[in-house]
Amino acid sequence: MTVNALTSSTPAATADTTRVHIDLGDRSYDILIGEGLLGDAASYAAAPKSSTAVIVSNTTVAPLYAARLEAALRGKHAKVVTVALPDGEEFKDWQTLNLIFDALLGHGADRKTVLYALGGGVVGDMTGFAAASYMRGVPFVQVPTTLLAQVDSSVGGKTAINHPLGKNMIGAFYQPRVVVCDLTSLDTLPDRELSAGLAEVIKYGPIADAAFFSWLESNLDALLARDRSALRYAIQRSCEIKAWVVGQDEKESGLRAILNFGHTFGHAIEAGLGYGEWLHGEAVGCGMVMAAALSAKLGLIGNDVAARITALVARAKLPTVGPKLGADKYIELMRLDKKSEAGEIRFVVIDQLGTASMRPAPDALVRDVIDAHTA
Amino acid sequence: MTVNALTSSTPAATADTTRVHIDLGDRSYDILIGEGLLGDAASYAAAPKSSTAVIVSNTTVAPLYAARLEAALRGKHAKVVTVALPDGEEFKDWQTLNLIFDALLGHGADRKTVLYALGGGVVGDMTGFAAASYMRGVPFVQVPTTLLAQVDSSVGGKTAINHPLGKNMIGAFYQPRVVVCDLTSLDTLPDRELSAGLAEVIKYGPIADAAFFSWLESNLDALLARDRSALRYAIQRSCEIKAWVVGQDEKESGLRAILNFGHTFGHAIEAGLGYGEWLHGEAVGCGMVMAAALSAKLGLIGNDVAARITALVARAKLPTVGPKLGADKYIELMRLDKKSEAGEIRFVVIDQLGTASMRPAPDALVRDVIDAHTA
Repeated sequence: MTVNALTSSTPAATADTTRVHIDLGDRSYDILIGEGLLGDAASYAAAPKSSTAVIVSNTTVAPLYAARLEAALRGKHAKVVTVALPDGEEFKDWQTLNLIFDALLGHGADRKTVLYALGGGVVGDMTGFAAASYMRGVPFVQVPTTLLAQVDSSVGGKTAINHPLGKNMIGAFYQPRVVVCDLTSLDTLPDRELSAGLAEVIKYGPIADAAFFSWLESNLDALLARDRSALRYAIQRSCEIKAWVVGQDEKESGLRAILNFGHTFGHAIEAGLGYGEWLHGEAVGCGMVMAAALSAKLGLIGNDVAARITALVARAKLPTVGPKLGADKYIELMRLDKKSEAGEIRFVVIDQLGTASMRPAPDALVRDVIDAHTA
Repeated sequence: MTVNALTSSTPAATADTTRVHIDLGDRSYDILIGEGLLGDAASYAAAPKSSTAVIVSNTTVAPLYAARLEAALRGKHAKVVTVALPDGEEFKDWQTLNLIFDALLGHGADRKTVLYALGGGVVGDMTGFAAASYMRGVPFVQVPTTLLAQVDSSVGGKTAINHPLGKNMIGAFYQPRVVVCDLTSLDTLPDRELSAGLAEVIKYGPIADAAFFSWLESNLDALLARDRSALRYAIQRSCEIKAWVVGQDEKESGLRAILNFGHTFGHAIEAGLGYGEWLHGEAVGCGMVMAAALSAKLGLIGNDVAARITALVARAKLPTVGPKLGADKYIELMRLDKKSEAGEIRFVVIDQLGTASMRPAPDALVRDVIDAHTA
């Protein structure tokens, strides 16, 4: 994978809607990025009309945005109801998923009912899996309100819930009809979650686009200050890169696994501490530092490149040191990773800035990295 | 839909393996029908090799056949484990599904692990949904041991669990790698379940093949006596007809709904009595009698055709009179049917013997049918 294979794009100068097209044949859809899109009926033109729509949100986001979304949908659906789930990664489970099914059946939802996911990654993943499974599949729309969800859940069709023994273990590949990323919804995002979202943005540099990594080094302060034009470009470029990777490997048989850069260590941190202790993006940020260190130890990149990645993660106000769970515990948890095969852990490593691959690593090196990067 | 559009076939004369090919592009697979296939390693040639295989069965079927299947799989998978679920439609729920996920994660199953469904329709539907959802999809094989599962679950890729408010409300379309129908496994089937399976076999006559309906009228006694050559042909023809219908409408947007002949009334019976009270096939048998009566009341078929359908259902030792839940209750439950749209119930009706379609019906006629066919 090289930068040249990607269609290059430059930051948009206007305040109009930016459109990233995800080409998946008859499951193609657009990601819309702009200001004020959430409350604009036109944003949802690609969703089918139906008598009933169910907005799935959480108790934090629903009070802020559900009324605005409901109003935008009334011309399209005679009945619009909102379900507010408890907020947090620790609720991404069967019990909470069942609240969605209970609401759908309680409101007489049929197989034409459209689900709208309004919230962050947890809401998007759960709503997507509910849509994939309810009556074996109903249409759904993503309205991500966090930076992480806008850059991560927008592309790839991954939906899932957690199992006590592993994150995202139960789910489906299922595509939305449209993804509506409203930049103004990021105004209400807590600083900690903005940083968590930046972890996934930063990820796209090392794995696929050295120029974007440099752009991030130059623009990180603007992103932290929530400059809308910087955010718009960061989201657009992240979605473009992810779409390019996913477009070649929709079902994650090979290349797509590079999107999990930082996630193997990150998932172990999340599972080891208990989901919800660290934000997903925080775990990924720290996981990228560890994966970059492993790449350097394997002799793939120099320590200078690993240091640039670590420095950018730190500037984004993300942790660069993992919890001291012990190397045994990290390795035990990483063996459960979905990329593992027959018990062998496979890591996403950086071959050079902008190029990644997946490979196993000697146990001793992995232990060195864990010992050096946890405290 | 006419008989002529279907490839005709005649009862096989040999004891060799009968093969029905299900053509779904890169998800194509074969249904194998024969004697002794379950314990023959060659039957599973189409399943991928992997380090781990998990057989999902139930506490009734596992003691009869799990050891034989395990032995057949040992050359293909280093580790073969069996999970025995509680037996019965009333266990087709989240809690039981989670037993499968617990076992998969407990045994370190990865995304190459192959699931084998060994049992009837409940085991097949749950294992299929578990396979569709575990790590967003692992390969699976159907080894149906009941007549109903052999003719019904073998084709169509429908997997699901029940919700307290509706049957098969949560699931996925997901195709197996191969379906292995061992005629000798029908030897251990209770009479009541043999009859339940015949309900789904009978169904294919009125909806798609008048000649097959006549064949059934001539061969029902042989089927009840478990004559293997009669069973082989009944299974083959049922699978061929279902494959022909599903091949034109994989995701059930239109034509495929005719496979639900008898199921709208039938599901109401099952839900109204509580799942597990009547067998699914019993409810479908009675539902076909009611749907045939509705077709006659709508003036689509004569009373003589409805009487032939009723007589064949009765000869198969299936109920022809539904429980007296009251017309209101039936209608309330049928509104939850997946074919309903905006609260309007859509019935599969017989236009002439061998041709079916889907349409709404006046409430008064539906109430007449319910009143006349319940006691």
